[in-house]
Amino acid sequence: MDKIQVGWNRIEEIAGEQGVKTMEEVQDFSPRLAKMAVEFGYGDIYSDDTLDLKQRAMITLSSLISQGDQGTALTFHFKIALKVGLSKEEILEVINHCSGYVGFPKAISSLSHFKKAYSEFENENK
Amino acid sequence: MDKIQVGWNRIEEIAGEQGVKTMEEVQDFSPRLAKMAVEFGYGDIYSDDTLDLKQRAMITLSSLISQGDQGTALTFHFKIALKVGLSKEEILEVINHCSGYVGFPKAISSLSHFKKAYSEFENENK
Amino acid sequence: MDKIQVGWNRIEEIAGEQGVKTMEEVQDFSPRLAKMAVEFGYGDIYSDDTLDLKQRAMITLSSLISQGDQGTALTFHFKIALKVGLSKEEILEVINHCSGYVGFPKAISSLSHFKKAYSEFENENK
Amino acid sequence: MDKIQVGWNRIEEIAGEQGVKTMEEVQDFSPRLAKMAVEFGYGDIYSDDTLDLKQRAMITLSSLISQGDQGTALTFHFKIALKVGLSKEEILEVINHCSGYVGFPKAISSLSHFKKAYSEFENENK
Amino acid sequence: MDKIQVGWNRIEEIAGEQGVKTMEEVQDFSPRLAKMAVEFGYGDIYSDDTLDLKQRAMITLSSLISQGDQGTALTFHFKIALKVGLSKEEILEVINHCSGYVGFPKAISSLSHFKKAYSEFENENK
Amino acid sequence: MDKIQVGWNRIEEIAGEQGVKTMEEVQDFSPRLAKMAVEFGYGDIYSDDTLDLKQRAMITLSSLISQGDQGTALTFHFKIALKVGLSKEEILEVINHCSGYVGFPKAISSLSHFKKAYSEFENENK
Repeated sequence: MDKIQVGWNRIEEIAGEQGVKTMEEVQDFSPRLAKMAVEFGYGDIYSDDTLDLKQRAMITLSSLISQGDQGTALTFHFKIALKVGLSKEEILEVINHCSGYVGFPKAISSLSHFKKAYSEFENENK
Repeated sequence: MDKIQVGWNRIEEIAGEQGVKTMEEVQDFSPRLAKMAVEFGYGDIYSDDTLDLKQRAMITLSSLISQGDQGTALTFHFKIALKVGLSKEEILEVINHCSGYVGFPKAISSLSHFKKAYSEFENENK
Repeated sequence: MDKIQVGWNRIEEIAGEQGVKTMEEVQDFSPRLAKMAVEFGYGDIYSDDTLDLKQRAMITLSSLISQGDQGTALTFHFKIALKVGLSKEEILEVINHCSGYVGFPKAISSLSHFKKAYSEFENENK
Repeated sequence: MDKIQVGWNRIEEIAGEQGVKTMEEVQDFSPRLAKMAVEFGYGDIYSDDTLDLKQRAMITLSSLISQGDQGTALTFHFKIALKVGLSKEEILEVINHCSGYVGFPKAISSLSHFKKAYSEFENENK
Repeated sequence: MDKIQVGWNRIEEIAGEQGVKTMEEVQDFSPRLAKMAVEFGYGDIYSDDTLDLKQRAMITLSSLISQGDQGTALTFHFKIALKVGLSKEEILEVINHCSGYVGFPKAISSLSHFKKAYSEFENENK
Repeated sequence: MDKIQVGWNRIEEIAGEQGVKTMEEVQDFSPRLAKMAVEFGYGDIYSDDTLDLKQRAMITLSSLISQGDQGTALTFHFKIALKVGLSKEEILEVINHCSGYVGFPKAISSLSHFKKAYSEFENENK
């Protein structure tokens, strides 16, 4: 199986149908960006077993919180974090932990994105 | 036991004597910054058991890599990560994972800080 | 009086009822993040008299402008700045000053957040 | 001709009537910030012929993508990029190129701002 | 007096001979960058009396701490802050205040730059 | 030819033997990070002809200046920029242009990295 297919399978596994759809929207407007994100971002990076999906979700969230993500990527990855099995409490603690390393404004902004993402996730999975 | 003492104990537990010494140097020049870092940063944040020390190390490293830390905090926390039990391979994979989320320049800069921190840690612990 | 109560009093003093309400919303979803923000952010940091509230407002605004805050924290702190007595002209000059240190895009984004915050503040205080 | 007039002419040349209008809105609320942005940002910086307008547009976009611009400046400068003659494909490739240097979240956020800006530009220029 | 001369005078006033020399080194390698920094950065921005030099120093330091400055600009502006009359205690409190808004790593990195700048300033002014 | 070989060839083409050596040092400590940087960063991103190497160098430099790169990546890419044919004047103007978009501190820090890189490049190529 080639790397691009590995990547799409991985997105479906960790982000579900919603995740696939989000990436397909990227693909509609920029096929090359989607190809690189899927092949490298998912096919390559996630192909290694040194870290499991829960650990990768925590690392990703910390990165997005720390770079002040505007909400699109945070929402996407908060849902992935819930889907791969992190609890609401664990995700809240990732935000708490980050507050000491990036300050309260980014922590609190991220909290409001999580609040929305959590509520959407609950609705999509009941 | 009051929170400041809890904080100092926690630093010794996760960062060892070297870590205590580093924070004491902060304290010499700015007692109030050290007090806040120890009380809040270590006494408060690390007082919760929802995440374990390995998970916290991964989240901290991702935050520092993502904010382009100049090396001081990264070196301190790479050593903590090794001390609380993350393997060299797991730490390298934290950096690899971050490359897709913050780009290669920050990943490769962090790698060179890790190379130096790892070598120092090996020397300090043999 | 314990530190958490000192913090809540301080929020009410500098941010008014609106500010208390905003922090209570954080508390509803994440009691621990609110506790840390109130105790450390307000109880600790603002407990020192070396800088007065106007100076702290300027420093906070410069930090938020410089880190490209998405608007939530900027709006909150623009209102605090007005409440503790900075004039509209002084706040505009904080933004002007920052333009040389962080560039025009962040300055102009902040200006649009201030425009909105200023108008809301005027309505809430007439 | 004085520098402020040179700046306004330059904005009209590269950003069109829409661009002038945007800067006039800045001027309404903060005359001094607008004056500095027009004089220095456009009168000074763009007065040099070492780089042409297409090159400057690429450099500006890369800067805004890399600093995680919230959308206001990106939208403004995506339209300038189109107006000075960059093709949709060239702009998409600026975003693609940046993905390796700042990671996918900022690249994909920028893509969604470009999608909107491109559609608006097409409507305004047909 | 033209704006460039106003700017150079202002640098000498707030940064002393050392400050002038630093800017002259920029000028040797990039005359145009120095011209813009002096004219706009000092001639324009500092020409306004809405904020005084102590307030501007605080705002500048907060901006540099928050953007994770590598040390060159921080050292330059810590010395300016001391020269225009901020006390060591006030500058330390600027750093303390920022810790809640940008996290401890940037605060502690800045502290080590300040420690060095303060010691140099003391030597240069005894 | 597989993508990894395409990547290594591309590095040699644009960064010369020095560039290959730098990436080999990354490879020695982290084979997987080097593989991803070479395959994706060089094999993929640079495989597209929509932008030429001079344009890519400008975009890369703007990104690194804007994210406050600590110097390692900037030095590497200043040399690439010279090697693919940008003049010293064009590179200085990239920095000048960025000053309006990210502020003077990052512009001036980058200038000092460029001064050093330019001097090394001259020595390596005479």
